[in-house]
Amino acid sequence: MSEKITENEYLGGKVRIRQPLRGYRAGVDPVLLAASVPARSGQTVLELGTGVGTAALCLAARVSGLSLVGVELQRAYADLARENAGLNKAQFEVITADLNDLPSDLKQRRFDHVIANPPYFDRSASHAAQDQGRETAMGEDTPLAIWLSVAAKRVAPKGYVTFIHRAERLSDLLSLMPAALGSVQVLPFIPRAERDANLVLVRARHSGRAPLRLHAPILLHQGAQHEKDAENYTDRVKSVLRDGAALPFPA
Amino acid sequence: MSEKITENEYLGGKVRIRQPLRGYRAGVDPVLLAASVPARSGQTVLELGTGVGTAALCLAARVSGLSLVGVELQRAYADLARENAGLNKAQFEVITADLNDLPSDLKQRRFDHVIANPPYFDRSASHAAQDQGRETAMGEDTPLAIWLSVAAKRVAPKGYVTFIHRAERLSDLLSLMPAALGSVQVLPFIPRAERDANLVLVRARHSGRAPLRLHAPILLHQGAQHEKDAENYTDRVKSVLRDGAALPFPA
Repeated sequence: MSEKITENEYLGGKVRIRQPLRGYRAGVDPVLLAASVPARSGQTVLELGTGVGTAALCLAARVSGLSLVGVELQRAYADLARENAGLNKAQFEVITADLNDLPSDLKQRRFDHVIANPPYFDRSASHAAQDQGRETAMGEDTPLAIWLSVAAKRVAPKGYVTFIHRAERLSDLLSLMPAALGSVQVLPFIPRAERDANLVLVRARHSGRAPLRLHAPILLHQGAQHEKDAENYTDRVKSVLRDGAALPFPA
Repeated sequence: MSEKITENEYLGGKVRIRQPLRGYRAGVDPVLLAASVPARSGQTVLELGTGVGTAALCLAARVSGLSLVGVELQRAYADLARENAGLNKAQFEVITADLNDLPSDLKQRRFDHVIANPPYFDRSASHAAQDQGRETAMGEDTPLAIWLSVAAKRVAPKGYVTFIHRAERLSDLLSLMPAALGSVQVLPFIPRAERDANLVLVRARHSGRAPLRLHAPILLHQGAQHEKDAENYTDRVKSVLRDGAALPFPA
């Protein structure tokens, strides 16, 4: 990881995140993920692959009284996540561990919500990133099947598992969904009107038995073209990113 | 099957379909399926579970010079499909057979396109229909895995497989997709703005290697509420249903 660290504001300044300038940097994905989680005060949340803690801390900023735990493989990111927990005065415990080999006390615990923003690029399909931290954060050292399997094991009965991922991984997310999870809901994001989805939120419930629901997509940007550097988010997405509004799945 | 047969018009009268009054009756699904198939004159098309032949005959009406084959398990529907082929003067051969046990000469053939509108209701989740023909057509005597497996075997290299199904079966469609098929595209239909998808077209290509694409949904009805008996389809869908326009997957 590069040693240069920057501090960035999320949710209109409600959340401050210190992160490496050149490594993996949080975009809108963890913010959208956090906005979608139906957590209530007093509940417990586990984030798999928490990175510098952006999703967990955005969720903590929106819902008070949560007890959050993050698991992160890379020590430098985990250290920053702990620093960010302090910076944002959040009850957020960060555990440096491999999803394949969680500490035994964590294996005793189950959570009301498990969330994840897994690495994006299939290693086989992507060029190795120059920065090793970025490579691990964005490559796929740990197969998606493991992420889903760990989520299913750590979520409490009736609890929710919520993942955000690239839309092109939808088939993998659905195919690899463990049998303990059901009532799957898919909430796509499309960058512009009429365009293909680029992101999907996939939520499942432990012991859920409802049929799959494919929701109407959420539009990210206004206008037909992407104007460079112009942050032309739709009002709905702007309220999530700038004001910390919730982005609930449709009832 | 009830002995009462009605004749109905599709595509603004371009297609005439004789079908049982009380058994399974074609709705918009086979018409949308037919409109989406990228067939060109001179190509071959196989429809699995062709019923009375609605999808195949709608496709034949839009694209001239196709050679179509339909497989139908239920003799009474297959007989009507043959009658409908004659009524519409289409080159449409109908084979009465079980997907699990196709005639050996059909097993020697491969098609540029394989299409299907599989039965809708999971037998375990639905009440038995009063009409036995309707029950077989809408129940799930043959598992979806068999439909997809037969489609993958009968489609030619680089050919397309296109299924229309209820949106709640999306996970099954993607999970059960045979390895020979790839470049999956999902085109959802939503009944009203902001509502969940009720139907999905899922297309895959033999030997395809492109990432999955989840397209923006197609809106079926205008207005916020369903007015009883009012056919308030959107202009785009109306042009498909009434004028026989194509409904291509996004490029």
